[in-house]
Amino acid sequence: MLIDRLIEKIIQLESPIVAGLDPRLSQIPGAFKEPYYAQHGKIPVAAAEIFYNWGKEIIDNIFDIVPAVKPQIAMYEQFGAPGIDAYIKTIEYAKAKGLIVIGDVKRGDIASTAEAYADGHIGRVDVDGNLHEVFKEEFITLNPYMGYDAVQPYIEHCKGGEKGIFVLVKTSNVGSSQIQDIISADGLPIYQHVGELVSSWGEGLIGRYGFSLVGAVVGATHPNEAKLLREKMPHTFFLVPGYGAQGAGAGDLKGVFNKDHIGAIVNSSRGITGAYALEKYKKDYDEKDFAKASRAAALDMRKDLQSII
Amino acid sequence: MLIDRLIEKIIQLESPIVAGLDPRLSQIPGAFKEPYYAQHGKIPVAAAEIFYNWGKEIIDNIFDIVPAVKPQIAMYEQFGAPGIDAYIKTIEYAKAKGLIVIGDVKRGDIASTAEAYADGHIGRVDVDGNLHEVFKEEFITLNPYMGYDAVQPYIEHCKGGEKGIFVLVKTSNVGSSQIQDIISADGLPIYQHVGELVSSWGEGLIGRYGFSLVGAVVGATHPNEAKLLREKMPHTFFLVPGYGAQGAGAGDLKGVFNKDHIGAIVNSSRGITGAYALEKYKKDYDEKDFAKASRAAALDMRKDLQSII
Repeated sequence: MLIDRLIEKIIQLESPIVAGLDPRLSQIPGAFKEPYYAQHGKIPVAAAEIFYNWGKEIIDNIFDIVPAVKPQIAMYEQFGAPGIDAYIKTIEYAKAKGLIVIGDVKRGDIASTAEAYADGHIGRVDVDGNLHEVFKEEFITLNPYMGYDAVQPYIEHCKGGEKGIFVLVKTSNVGSSQIQDIISADGLPIYQHVGELVSSWGEGLIGRYGFSLVGAVVGATHPNEAKLLREKMPHTFFLVPGYGAQGAGAGDLKGVFNKDHIGAIVNSSRGITGAYALEKYKKDYDEKDFAKASRAAALDMRKDLQSII
Repeated sequence: MLIDRLIEKIIQLESPIVAGLDPRLSQIPGAFKEPYYAQHGKIPVAAAEIFYNWGKEIIDNIFDIVPAVKPQIAMYEQFGAPGIDAYIKTIEYAKAKGLIVIGDVKRGDIASTAEAYADGHIGRVDVDGNLHEVFKEEFITLNPYMGYDAVQPYIEHCKGGEKGIFVLVKTSNVGSSQIQDIISADGLPIYQHVGELVSSWGEGLIGRYGFSLVGAVVGATHPNEAKLLREKMPHTFFLVPGYGAQGAGAGDLKGVFNKDHIGAIVNSSRGITGAYALEKYKKDYDEKDFAKASRAAALDMRKDLQSII
């Protein structure tokens, strides 16, 4: 079962870390980009090839120390079809290296629209009787605002045991308070209601460690809320953004793990992939060694998290 | 200004209608699909070509009687890069025919991720100094769950006057009640709070008819809620799903227009594009005339809506 495999990889590597792949041209060294511009010109196809080859470099340097990667589809999608191709190739490459892939797509729509997203991303599309796997993510992130019928089609694909979802509950950004923190008539903030729904959606999909294939996105930047949700959602695995570049440290993360020190995977994107440009790593790594700096940053993050679990 | 152009087209055509382009292979006549399967086999590339050429047929038959189309990206995206190509080509074709294009993407993410979506869909992407328009929608739909910082990057692109957004407020599906209808401590349901936020996000972007470039998605299947939102959000234009196949009729739509009979555009997807298979049109149109049946259905819908405005 996918959630068990994820937990076992986390335990084996002592590394509750997912490396976010959010490529930005401005944060990739010029010398790395140059050959693609020379070949194609500064066009979307070049950007897409840069992102794919950049992702390979990062993956090659971290695949043995983190259990999972989380490519952010927006970064690829903005460049249209070649970007989507690069996103899919990145997923294939990561899986071939043994990494679990969480596609950060945050899709949310209903009925047959949700089915189309679900088939494309974690199922198979049906071309008049011929079935094709297209995106091939293992987990994807989803938005709950439209309610159960926007999530159900994905849950159908989870029932096979090898696909999962993470639904937004309490996100890491400042603006998350505007809707998620509204207090309802029964005294609970909206995100807690959403947490209850997400928890219920995972019933019947629980693996041997007590966690379900329906996870929740819970930001590390709200440690008190995260701790509360951990208590209220004992069977829900958390995908935790907000560590590092967004401001949260290891101390903020204690509450997202249960007493057995499991139950969450912590994301770092720029903190790992952009490490070469950070003061801490700059002196030891040239730009051309950007992916080695990512490895050093992932190792440092692992050590930091080991201090609390 | 885009919102003024939309309103003027609606008035000129007496047609507050947007035709939803949600292609499904199972609802496209076999004879239309056959040449593409013969050429490519039953693979995603064939599906994408079918969708693009199907969209052209529909557009050719309705462009003079409806002001806008709303392609649903999920239907195209499920087929990967070729699907995204077909989606973009469909947008280009519709715009060349003078239609206003609302990309139904329902994206929602924060910070630089939202910027990437915004640049790609309604702005321009920057390939190290070279700017490219990629998706080219005029309006896109967005999800508000993450709050203001998930919407702000798109609003930046609206400031030029020629791009707009529709933010989910009260959606047409049954499950929309789960989160959107939770009553908050001040007695108002969540969707009204979201409505207030969306309304405030549009301040400063209001055109000559009193409507802003920041619109709201309000389902026709909730006529009372829609009427209330119309009163509370006088400057917010509504994109209204739920007519036809989802069950709402003209009577349910009265409340979405203001006293001047403007303020909303009503979507129909399968009711227009799938008309050839409906009992009402089947006797007059062969499968090969599916797009002519769509024209007849759009004309009937226009007449139906004219009865209330």
